[in-house]
Amino acid sequence: MRATTIHGTRDIRVSDVADPRLEAPTDAIVKVTAACICGSDLWPYRGENDITPGDTIGHECIGVVEEVGSAVRDFSVGDFVIVPFCHSDNTCPHCLAGFQSACEHSSMTSSGQAEYARVGQADGSLVRTDGVPDRDLFPSLLTLTDVMATGWHAAVAAGVREGGTAVVVGDGAVGLCGVLAASVMGAETIVAMSRHESRQQIATGFGATHVVAERGREGGQAVKEITGGVGADAVLECVGTGDAMDLAFAVARPGATVGFVGVPHGVELPIRRMFVKNIGLRGGIAPVRQYLPELLDLVTSGRIDPGKVFDLALPLDEVAEGYRAMDERRAVKVMIEP
Amino acid sequence: MRATTIHGTRDIRVSDVADPRLEAPTDAIVKVTAACICGSDLWPYRGENDITPGDTIGHECIGVVEEVGSAVRDFSVGDFVIVPFCHSDNTCPHCLAGFQSACEHSSMTSSGQAEYARVGQADGSLVRTDGVPDRDLFPSLLTLTDVMATGWHAAVAAGVREGGTAVVVGDGAVGLCGVLAASVMGAETIVAMSRHESRQQIATGFGATHVVAERGREGGQAVKEITGGVGADAVLECVGTGDAMDLAFAVARPGATVGFVGVPHGVELPIRRMFVKNIGLRGGIAPVRQYLPELLDLVTSGRIDPGKVFDLALPLDEVAEGYRAMDERRAVKVMIEP
Repeated sequence: MRATTIHGTRDIRVSDVADPRLEAPTDAIVKVTAACICGSDLWPYRGENDITPGDTIGHECIGVVEEVGSAVRDFSVGDFVIVPFCHSDNTCPHCLAGFQSACEHSSMTSSGQAEYARVGQADGSLVRTDGVPDRDLFPSLLTLTDVMATGWHAAVAAGVREGGTAVVVGDGAVGLCGVLAASVMGAETIVAMSRHESRQQIATGFGATHVVAERGREGGQAVKEITGGVGADAVLECVGTGDAMDLAFAVARPGATVGFVGVPHGVELPIRRMFVKNIGLRGGIAPVRQYLPELLDLVTSGRIDPGKVFDLALPLDEVAEGYRAMDERRAVKVMIEP
Repeated sequence: MRATTIHGTRDIRVSDVADPRLEAPTDAIVKVTAACICGSDLWPYRGENDITPGDTIGHECIGVVEEVGSAVRDFSVGDFVIVPFCHSDNTCPHCLAGFQSACEHSSMTSSGQAEYARVGQADGSLVRTDGVPDRDLFPSLLTLTDVMATGWHAAVAAGVREGGTAVVVGDGAVGLCGVLAASVMGAETIVAMSRHESRQQIATGFGATHVVAERGREGGQAVKEITGGVGADAVLECVGTGDAMDLAFAVARPGATVGFVGVPHGVELPIRRMFVKNIGLRGGIAPVRQYLPELLDLVTSGRIDPGKVFDLALPLDEVAEGYRAMDERRAVKVMIEP
């Protein structure tokens, strides 16, 4: 099949690779209808994570079930499915507690930006749509495989509540989805920390009541003013850098929780401040499967349209341009169509 | 007045110092009926915190109101009161959110182990008992000024819930009170990490269903076995050292929260594990005033008897022996009577 492969720093290609095949009776193979590039794909792209040259890349896709293993009971060839980036049996104690990303049988989509992808624990992982959805819904459905569920997880972890104040650090697709999540959850004041006009516009469309372009000390000061000197009830940290985490804790009021979903890189936690001000930290890899049914309902009922985070769509052959556009921040998020 | 003073490492004396006086119209002066030594008093005692030689020490006391400032409305001379170690106005946004330890007008009891103590923001800080309580209740009432409220806070922060599993790291008075708190909150399995027989006995009396004497890797393994390989739903970290925090995270199941109340000394948080396993961290200085009414009711109704953590009572003149006994772990907690 044709698949996106990574060969070195900023070296993305489209290659012919072996089709994925059923490796366990619980596997399914999905023919990819639409895929996308994740902000976390930029870590290996930029050389900040180790890679094996020639490996496939991409973990976000939706598509049609092409083949199922002998133990798969709930899905059939032809089903249109949302593929959570992390696969889970949905029956182990961690899954039952709602943390499918820590499933005892977890795996990840490894060839999302390709013609086919293998899904482990298909019965526990996949969620079917009612028939083949309208093409207009593809972008929003795609976000449910990762970014929208991850933004939602940040909001859940941060304890966003009706009438409260939420600050979102990070204006990537996850941060923007975090704004949308906070809005759905009824936060009254939602501050998007963003200095890119196009992203500010999406944030406002998603429900941000305030946009703060400043960072660091000035950014913290701006949030303090918006919150009447008190600080935020809930902070969504959607970046993963030390600066972003510092800002998140700086704007959190005593007793607040920072919900973090950005993969931590060079983060040092301010444990004294956490202790003295009772500011908690919760989050991590989103248990996408936990939220999928609820989010799918929000999308299909038209209540949310997280697909607006896509501002570029490219055919699979041009996937390298998609990486460049995201790397250079010319695009928020790129959809890929095999 | 006669007061406990600290002069250097392991140098505790009883000295004549000036009586505390009203410094603000919102202050009250309390004549101390009973006081105690806190585990956190051992940090300066052991030379691990800076001190000013000759300073008074001690922040846990109960007693009778001796004098009130002109702005104090709710308390009168003669009231028997519980004095939370941190004082708060109980009206600022942080107090109203339940985090009185981060009050905009916070202060601390600074001469608890003495004849008199000054209390800031008396109306917001103090809680009165119904008349002068029976002497038998003094130990339990004393714990409400800090350790019982702090153990309770650890349990609240860790999200202990009915039917769940709670592990308590630390068998000092706070950890033991954490066991009691988890028991009141209905945890079904409560594991006390303790290798001191006298403390194990108190833990069991407070509701621990299991005692694990091992530490480090072996301790973690023991908890894994008790929890069927899953790990604990809630972990109460009641020490503050790096080893204790490491153990707390090691025994936490995915999605669990570590509730921490030990003042952090040399702690490095395992942020990768927190992220990958979605293990949260919450806690800090206990908002004693938030919990006081509820805890006072539990004590006076006889439902809890946290005063059992006291295994030594001394007159004020012998306070130095109390410090020695706690430093050498000959005593769990020492009551002082001026």
